[in-house]
Amino acid sequence: MEEEVSVLFMPSGLRGQVPVGTTVLQAAQRLGVDLESICGGQGKCRKCQVLPQQGEFSKHGISSRADHLSPLTATELMQQSKNRLKNGRRLGCNARILGDLVVDVPEESQQHKQHIAKAVTAYDIQVQPALHLYTVTLPEPDMHAPISDKRRLQQALASEHDLPIMDCEMSQLRLLQPALARAGRQVTVAVYQFQQIIAVWPGVKEEVYGLAVDLGSTTIAAQLCNMTSGEVVATADTMNPQIRFGEDLMSRVSYVMMNKGGDTAMTQVVREAFNQLAKRAAKSAGIQVEDILDMTVVANPIMHHLFLGIDPTPLGGAPFTLTTDQTQVLRAAELDIRLHPEARVCTLPCIAGHIGADTAGVILSERPDLADEHVLLVDIGTNAEIVLGNRHRLLAASSPTGPAFEGAQITSGQRAAPGAIERVRIDPQTLEPRFRMIGCEAWSDDPEFADKSARVSVSGICGSGIIEVVAEMYLSGVIDSDGVIGPVTGKDSPRIVQEGRTWSYVLHAGERAIRITQNDVRAIQLAKAALHAGVRLLLDHMGIDKVDRIGLAGAFGSHIDVKYAMVLGLIPDCSLEKVGSVGNAAGTGARIALLNFPSRLEIAEILPKVEKIETALEPKFQEYFIQAMAIPHKTDPYVELGKVVKFPEPKPRAEKADSGDRNRRRRLRRDRA
Amino acid sequence: MEEEVSVLFMPSGLRGQVPVGTTVLQAAQRLGVDLESICGGQGKCRKCQVLPQQGEFSKHGISSRADHLSPLTATELMQQSKNRLKNGRRLGCNARILGDLVVDVPEESQQHKQHIAKAVTAYDIQVQPALHLYTVTLPEPDMHAPISDKRRLQQALASEHDLPIMDCEMSQLRLLQPALARAGRQVTVAVYQFQQIIAVWPGVKEEVYGLAVDLGSTTIAAQLCNMTSGEVVATADTMNPQIRFGEDLMSRVSYVMMNKGGDTAMTQVVREAFNQLAKRAAKSAGIQVEDILDMTVVANPIMHHLFLGIDPTPLGGAPFTLTTDQTQVLRAAELDIRLHPEARVCTLPCIAGHIGADTAGVILSERPDLADEHVLLVDIGTNAEIVLGNRHRLLAASSPTGPAFEGAQITSGQRAAPGAIERVRIDPQTLEPRFRMIGCEAWSDDPEFADKSARVSVSGICGSGIIEVVAEMYLSGVIDSDGVIGPVTGKDSPRIVQEGRTWSYVLHAGERAIRITQNDVRAIQLAKAALHAGVRLLLDHMGIDKVDRIGLAGAFGSHIDVKYAMVLGLIPDCSLEKVGSVGNAAGTGARIALLNFPSRLEIAEILPKVEKIETALEPKFQEYFIQAMAIPHKTDPYVELGKVVKFPEPKPRAEKADSGDRNRRRRLRRDRA
Repeated sequence: MEEEVSVLFMPSGLRGQVPVGTTVLQAAQRLGVDLESICGGQGKCRKCQVLPQQGEFSKHGISSRADHLSPLTATELMQQSKNRLKNGRRLGCNARILGDLVVDVPEESQQHKQHIAKAVTAYDIQVQPALHLYTVTLPEPDMHAPISDKRRLQQALASEHDLPIMDCEMSQLRLLQPALARAGRQVTVAVYQFQQIIAVWPGVKEEVYGLAVDLGSTTIAAQLCNMTSGEVVATADTMNPQIRFGEDLMSRVSYVMMNKGGDTAMTQVVREAFNQLAKRAAKSAGIQVEDILDMTVVANPIMHHLFLGIDPTPLGGAPFTLTTDQTQVLRAAELDIRLHPEARVCTLPCIAGHIGADTAGVILSERPDLADEHVLLVDIGTNAEIVLGNRHRLLAASSPTGPAFEGAQITSGQRAAPGAIERVRIDPQTLEPRFRMIGCEAWSDDPEFADKSARVSVSGICGSGIIEVVAEMYLSGVIDSDGVIGPVTGKDSPRIVQEGRTWSYVLHAGERAIRITQNDVRAIQLAKAALHAGVRLLLDHMGIDKVDRIGLAGAFGSHIDVKYAMVLGLIPDCSLEKVGSVGNAAGTGARIALLNFPSRLEIAEILPKVEKIETALEPKFQEYFIQAMAIPHKTDPYVELGKVVKFPEPKPRAEKADSGDRNRRRRLRRDRA
Repeated sequence: MEEEVSVLFMPSGLRGQVPVGTTVLQAAQRLGVDLESICGGQGKCRKCQVLPQQGEFSKHGISSRADHLSPLTATELMQQSKNRLKNGRRLGCNARILGDLVVDVPEESQQHKQHIAKAVTAYDIQVQPALHLYTVTLPEPDMHAPISDKRRLQQALASEHDLPIMDCEMSQLRLLQPALARAGRQVTVAVYQFQQIIAVWPGVKEEVYGLAVDLGSTTIAAQLCNMTSGEVVATADTMNPQIRFGEDLMSRVSYVMMNKGGDTAMTQVVREAFNQLAKRAAKSAGIQVEDILDMTVVANPIMHHLFLGIDPTPLGGAPFTLTTDQTQVLRAAELDIRLHPEARVCTLPCIAGHIGADTAGVILSERPDLADEHVLLVDIGTNAEIVLGNRHRLLAASSPTGPAFEGAQITSGQRAAPGAIERVRIDPQTLEPRFRMIGCEAWSDDPEFADKSARVSVSGICGSGIIEVVAEMYLSGVIDSDGVIGPVTGKDSPRIVQEGRTWSYVLHAGERAIRITQNDVRAIQLAKAALHAGVRLLLDHMGIDKVDRIGLAGAFGSHIDVKYAMVLGLIPDCSLEKVGSVGNAAGTGARIALLNFPSRLEIAEILPKVEKIETALEPKFQEYFIQAMAIPHKTDPYVELGKVVKFPEPKPRAEKADSGDRNRRRRLRRDRA
């Protein structure tokens, strides 16, 4: 068993047990002590200075001695020799706890939350970016003391900003002399990770920007952030142009297998989409793309590998081997991304062949590894990534839901955009629907609807709308628990129309008709069964049957009405008030990694400890999947919905060819227009 | 005063005084102790392990105690925890000497010279390259333990080769899965500086290569080396194509000032010349350019900056500020050099605005910083770089000799190549010359000359030939001590011909006539005066008037007959047997840096200590220069030449227009052909 010792932090009074060999910084982080660290424990920023105490602290039962800390390290000796570590202080990230200890955290080592990033998803992020700006004025060159401009720059950074001597990218070194000449020998440099000068500007430069990108199979969303304030200054998104090579992940991998160079083509188009996004975001924020110096990317493994230019074929079949499951830091230019010439790109690590950096982003955003209760996180994109656990244990899996929840493969499905139906109610008596669409506040049966929808017209139905309409169809008896659409006994409705061998429900009969077909319902059933089976598998592995909290991530998760998700059995039992959207958690994770450099080190430490459940290897997955096809698998939620559920009778297959024909004709006309 | 302590190394018994705080490795190097180090003191290779002794060593008067060494560093603790530092051993590069000490160097830490590079210039180089090859076989991927191929590779390198966990270039990571698939999961990787995987090949890869390049204003010379054996497997050289933008350095800088983008054009052509050289060298060695993974470059500051793509304009005028005076390590691809895609390029550091990385190469080759005696090193290229000093003090300067010593700006001058006259004797009685040319063993007055020169005909005169002919012209009275050519009283010779207002000496009257004109003699006078003045300035600064040893570097220095250099006063007084060619020392320095990585760190430490003498700032330079125009400035050497010197009378300006005309006509005919 690991030997543990007591540590007490002052002035906070926080105390606890830590294993022998833990650094003071790690202990502080574990116990929630307010101890600053910018460089992520690399011994560079010297912010984590602490003062160990000696003596008997009988009130706490602690006998703190000098040799209860490891000897001074080379880094500390070096800092001492430069007078940067005085009066017995130690670097929290270097000093290891070897015995009971009392530690003072001096005022200046206490971490003070700097800036709060106001963002798409509100989220407190402590702004500690990977890069910092420094402005220095260099002395005039002196022929009698011939040293280079680079050395002069290094000396100024060391003396004025206490920075270590570091190298400078050649492309920027080329700019140094002209910059010095232009601005009275004053330059601003950007320093990456306290290690490398990656940008040089003449005079003063005050603002630089970073881009956090969530690269999904269907959509790519970018957040442009001010790297000093943390503020999100613009967002932009676009469809993933790889869709033309295959709608879902597997069809894209198949494309690579069947077409030599297919991976290169897909790599090129997605990088070009990044370039366009960066350009649009920069334009909307009124900045230049060259002012963007850092970028973080989250993506599922196949998107991740294709973005990096790695052949994703091995991810298309067992054993689903990743080429890399580590954080990769590259130059944007290496990836043909046009930002600042020396901008860096950091891709978050993937977890396993099916669980990607997007899930790493969700974990970084929600930090289930810090929770006491059992947390279930579900990120629904084209696949559903599922994370379950708490600070003792974390499990992760991916379930092949397909893109139905995103509106793809649905007859009138579309992305969540103005004109998309997002809310639906069906009157259980008349079977008449009413709906609300994105971009218009009024419901469709509101007298003001005509006025309020003047500038936006119904164009389709998005993920949350599909969930609601299918659930409402079920609740009103239009579909049975097997998901079959048909006329409702005793309720003759023109909304239920036959098309060939199956029936459809006409949600909107206007100029652009929106029908929900049997195939649409099947797609939703398959998707929700896959999700449900995946969650159940993780619950099995964890040995629990109920979770304490559920977070729904992704665009879909943000818009879905949780009650309807429960009606359809998408998510397991949980108090409704403990279920909530966590927004685009993957994207938030990307933004955290962008703005807070230490978080990149943290996620790299967390991930190897996550247990990966490979659904394809689990015999029970198929069984659970089939069981979960029916609607609903549980009846509890209905009570909470305050509705009386009437299980419909088997439906007679009455002919309603006319209206079906009319609909088909209408679609034909529309398609021709 | 710096406090010093005694250290005794066993079993060698070498001992000495070192300042407190010196590392054991530094002490060993200073005292000449046989202690291995591959990583250059970075704590990575663990080759420098030593065992400190405790006790009274009364015979040596040393009391060695445990606390006479600094405490274990973090690096050592880490190595200890991995059982790589056992039984009280310390890392010589980490442990600092704090008091008197006796240290054992275990058998396995004793350095054994590995390979001797057989080279253009024979030179012992210990082969410790910046990159190493490792072959590993990875286990099959296992879906139940999903880790990436990259992590599996890292684990194999750690367990089989004891390497630290390191990153891999993305371009090579892309090759990892196909390489594993191709060769039964066996791959070979190249590791750069124990820090980064820069190449991946399927199966076993045994040999990689490096290129050491001496980039001169006039010529570029490359040595292709096997990075394991150190052997030079091919050499190649070419003219510097920048010559078309300007013959000498200043005219090239002027070109940049006058032509926007002129620097870019010059950068492009020189890099392309590198590519052609690499291709030719690779072809001649029967390898692929992609097998070249490392490259070192020495060059004067302007060539150095242009090669790196840095505008050299500031080097064209006071205060002659370098953009960088540090070692630069880049990817070859960043410089558009086509070798292995991840090949590295290391440019040696420049010393000052006029003293470049080529001089750093000379210092690395000759190590005057280790000498007890006063060493004078002269590298004659288009400029002459001069280094003077010993282990206590080093001075360096550059003198603007111009390219005359290289055969440029000389009427019939040419590079040292077959057909170039390199040795000349003039009969003091008849004034008839005899000569030897490169590519033919026989002197021109040898009966066998016609036969032996059948395959090579006289094409011009190279640097060493010009020195000899001018010296011989002086010794035979054809020129006076002011350098004026004219008929010799009492010796009517058809060799001395008038051309306009001045006279020339016809060295070779055959099909391709070789004449030495008054302008040629002037060019040599100017060049030697510049060199002489520079050397004298350094002697002044050092406060000496005689040196103990002279090394002549460069192509010119290798071929020159030292006696003639003394006749003309190129070099100062020194015993003849202490003057010698050191070959292409700059190029040898590049090869040392290529094959011996620690030497790169050493030169970076030496250079900042070199005192730079700016000839342009020294009022005495001009004075010395004018004094040195006359031939000879000293009479001593003539005695050693065993000749009776007759100082010629002032010459009457007799008309010899005929032969001059004949020569001119002959040249015209030749030029037309």
